[in-house]
Amino acid sequence: MAASTPIPRTIYLGPFVHSTSLTTLEIAPEGAIGVDEDGIICFVEQNVSSLDNLITSLPSSQVEGWTDAKIVSIDGSSGFFFPGFIDTHVHAPQHPNTGLFGKTTLLDWLQKYTFPTESSFSDLQRAHRVYQNFVSRTLSHGTTTAAYYATIHVPATNALADICLERGQRALVGRVCMNSDLSPEYYRDESTESSYEDSKASIDYIRSIDPKGEIVKPIITPRFAPSCTESCLTAMGKLAKETDAHIQTHISENKGEIELVNSLFPDSKNYADVYDSHGLMNEKTILAHCVHLEPEERKLILERKSKISHCPASNTAITSGCAPIRDLLDEGHTIGLGTDISGGFSPSILENVRQAIWVSRHLCIQTSVETAKLSTEEALYLATRGGAAVVGMEDKVGGFEVGKEWDAQMINLGSVSEGGCEDGIFEQGPVDVFGWESWPDKVEKWVYSGDDRNTVAVWVKGRIVHMKSGYPGEKRAATP
Amino acid sequence: MAASTPIPRTIYLGPFVHSTSLTTLEIAPEGAIGVDEDGIICFVEQNVSSLDNLITSLPSSQVEGWTDAKIVSIDGSSGFFFPGFIDTHVHAPQHPNTGLFGKTTLLDWLQKYTFPTESSFSDLQRAHRVYQNFVSRTLSHGTTTAAYYATIHVPATNALADICLERGQRALVGRVCMNSDLSPEYYRDESTESSYEDSKASIDYIRSIDPKGEIVKPIITPRFAPSCTESCLTAMGKLAKETDAHIQTHISENKGEIELVNSLFPDSKNYADVYDSHGLMNEKTILAHCVHLEPEERKLILERKSKISHCPASNTAITSGCAPIRDLLDEGHTIGLGTDISGGFSPSILENVRQAIWVSRHLCIQTSVETAKLSTEEALYLATRGGAAVVGMEDKVGGFEVGKEWDAQMINLGSVSEGGCEDGIFEQGPVDVFGWESWPDKVEKWVYSGDDRNTVAVWVKGRIVHMKSGYPGEKRAATP
Repeated sequence: MAASTPIPRTIYLGPFVHSTSLTTLEIAPEGAIGVDEDGIICFVEQNVSSLDNLITSLPSSQVEGWTDAKIVSIDGSSGFFFPGFIDTHVHAPQHPNTGLFGKTTLLDWLQKYTFPTESSFSDLQRAHRVYQNFVSRTLSHGTTTAAYYATIHVPATNALADICLERGQRALVGRVCMNSDLSPEYYRDESTESSYEDSKASIDYIRSIDPKGEIVKPIITPRFAPSCTESCLTAMGKLAKETDAHIQTHISENKGEIELVNSLFPDSKNYADVYDSHGLMNEKTILAHCVHLEPEERKLILERKSKISHCPASNTAITSGCAPIRDLLDEGHTIGLGTDISGGFSPSILENVRQAIWVSRHLCIQTSVETAKLSTEEALYLATRGGAAVVGMEDKVGGFEVGKEWDAQMINLGSVSEGGCEDGIFEQGPVDVFGWESWPDKVEKWVYSGDDRNTVAVWVKGRIVHMKSGYPGEKRAATP
Repeated sequence: MAASTPIPRTIYLGPFVHSTSLTTLEIAPEGAIGVDEDGIICFVEQNVSSLDNLITSLPSSQVEGWTDAKIVSIDGSSGFFFPGFIDTHVHAPQHPNTGLFGKTTLLDWLQKYTFPTESSFSDLQRAHRVYQNFVSRTLSHGTTTAAYYATIHVPATNALADICLERGQRALVGRVCMNSDLSPEYYRDESTESSYEDSKASIDYIRSIDPKGEIVKPIITPRFAPSCTESCLTAMGKLAKETDAHIQTHISENKGEIELVNSLFPDSKNYADVYDSHGLMNEKTILAHCVHLEPEERKLILERKSKISHCPASNTAITSGCAPIRDLLDEGHTIGLGTDISGGFSPSILENVRQAIWVSRHLCIQTSVETAKLSTEEALYLATRGGAAVVGMEDKVGGFEVGKEWDAQMINLGSVSEGGCEDGIFEQGPVDVFGWESWPDKVEKWVYSGDDRNTVAVWVKGRIVHMKSGYPGEKRAATP
């Protein structure tokens, strides 16, 4: 539906909030953003007290095209527009295991929960059910772009790409490649050749349904080094070169995993070198976790311009460790956030904004280094602009500027009645605004106590892709 | 309303889940619990496949009283009854600051956020608005009992007790006592005498509105050592002796605070000794935080049989540290969970169940001591039976046994349709049940991804005190 419906020129009227740098969050209480029929932002105005005021502030050459635009407005006291979230690392087929991990850590968690669930995606009907549900979930949390791991199955992987395209969610979709005997016999590629052929088949399919890659793109996905033989990694490096596709994998998540990699690849200098020496580290590579990297590995990643996906909820839940994000930022790494469902327990990037802050505070508690702490502004940057750079879309999404595309969420906070609101009105969500809060305080309330109930509508490339039931926005729109 | 409405004998039919020990969670998929007109549990049956089956399983002497009982049933595939949560440490007036703390830690956070907000409760209308809203919130999260800190104001403190009694939420309500010059001139008791008189006035009032203390009880609340002069602490110790009331305060939350206490009370052996030497450490004392206690202090707390409130979300948010809960449990301490609004960022004990687990995993990450990790079962125990023991109600609430009172929440999980559910159906909450999950997995999904949307109804002492809008339970009830 989403990808094929034409969209009218639209003016988004009301407060907007976005990152303008790692440490700066811009809050425009009276904003107006014009988006054209292609979903491109044509103007971003501030201090717009009314529509008339907007018309007079636009250059006269521009006014004409916008006088009959559709208006989507938001209550300026309790709501704002915010860039869509970018989930740089998420396993869609693990959605049914969300919240299940017990006392496991990475390697036993894979065997107990992950492989059995993923293998069931040979059943295409089951894949459809889970993927439809999961894309609904992630959209409802304001995720406008996701870097998805699928499973080893080509039909199910292609189905995920179909669903993302149909629902209008930007996605990198990767068929998981794994052929070593770390994986159970019932769930692995048959051979290096089939790894190559199946991955290529999925890339070809995804490029056939969205030739310009406007919504969905393929991504080469060797699960992680221990899942792949040397020859398989070589084949993936070759495929990357041939197709110029994105690449995603895991690195340095857990200490036991690192020992395993060192024993499996004795000729490599370190974990990062395993990928680099097989042609899998370039500027289109997304490396998830990066919890325990050696200084040499960090240097190599910088040199190759590879990107980092920080998955704080997952790292805490399965006790992997605390990724040193402050140090990585200081060194100049490009970093976004990942939910890592289902190592992570929440499909929400907002929850991972909080978790990134908690992990950084735990690092501060451990090391007494006060600067380890990430600020609210920094974590929101990672969730938007940082993530955009990780998936190679920093010119398109992550913030509100002329020329970027309208990937956005409408946030609405709850307001407390004079009587203090009685039972039964909590449908408006978990955030209580009393009316005396400053704008920075309202944003902070959303960050620390908001959830998907506050995300009342979501757009990708100008198209509405999620509406909370009861969302009045589309009806409220009217030509001036 | 709640406290005065008569209640009929009721049979709660459907799955129930509760802790039977620190490490054991009992899951009864076919349960039936009979609750009499006084809210007392009269029978707890398992393997009840139907109402007829129940009637035949009850002793004949019992059957008569229950054949015309009201039935409250729950869908056995996606819901269960669970004991109400107990919040052992929460500042109700700080509710408007939920989610606001920026980069502060304890001592500057008090000056910047806490004292200005609390001082505004001299305005009784404002107090009413905030407290009505907050009691609604905590009930909606399944909190059936709370140990509340109010402010220094007697009228507002009494209003909180009135609201809890009216709404039917069990509460210990404490007027905050603070007279030292750590607190700003605009927000502190005038003198030791007024500290004593005001605290006594509030105790007397609360005992007058609920003479048996069935729903609300007073609690003596010296804020924390640095807020009180020696003479004030002495007066509070005297008041405790005279009234035999509960006591609550903070201890050993933050390293800077501990240094401050050591400098303010040079004659005391340690922080715990400050309270002990002023008659404030007995078996009715609730000590919040206990993050950095010395071994001697831990021993003293055990000897005095004082109780511990663990506030993991708060300790993480304002970077206080990681309380060593495993060690404290092993030593035999009595421990419950506290949200510590607004040092904590969530009024939900379920969120603090998760946070207790995350904090324990961070301790494991820091120390490599695998046993530091709290299990799901253990964290749920702290949230229910542990908390009940902390507030001195272990004989009344915290689990489902004959003779205990019916403080419970009905949990309902969302189910995923065959088609995978499209947009707009997320009102049922954040948990997705596909239908193939085991009961332990369903409970774990609730713990790690559930929220207040899953708490569809809440009872205290047999009375319904919260219903999610659209909750059909009361209508569903029918005489057999």
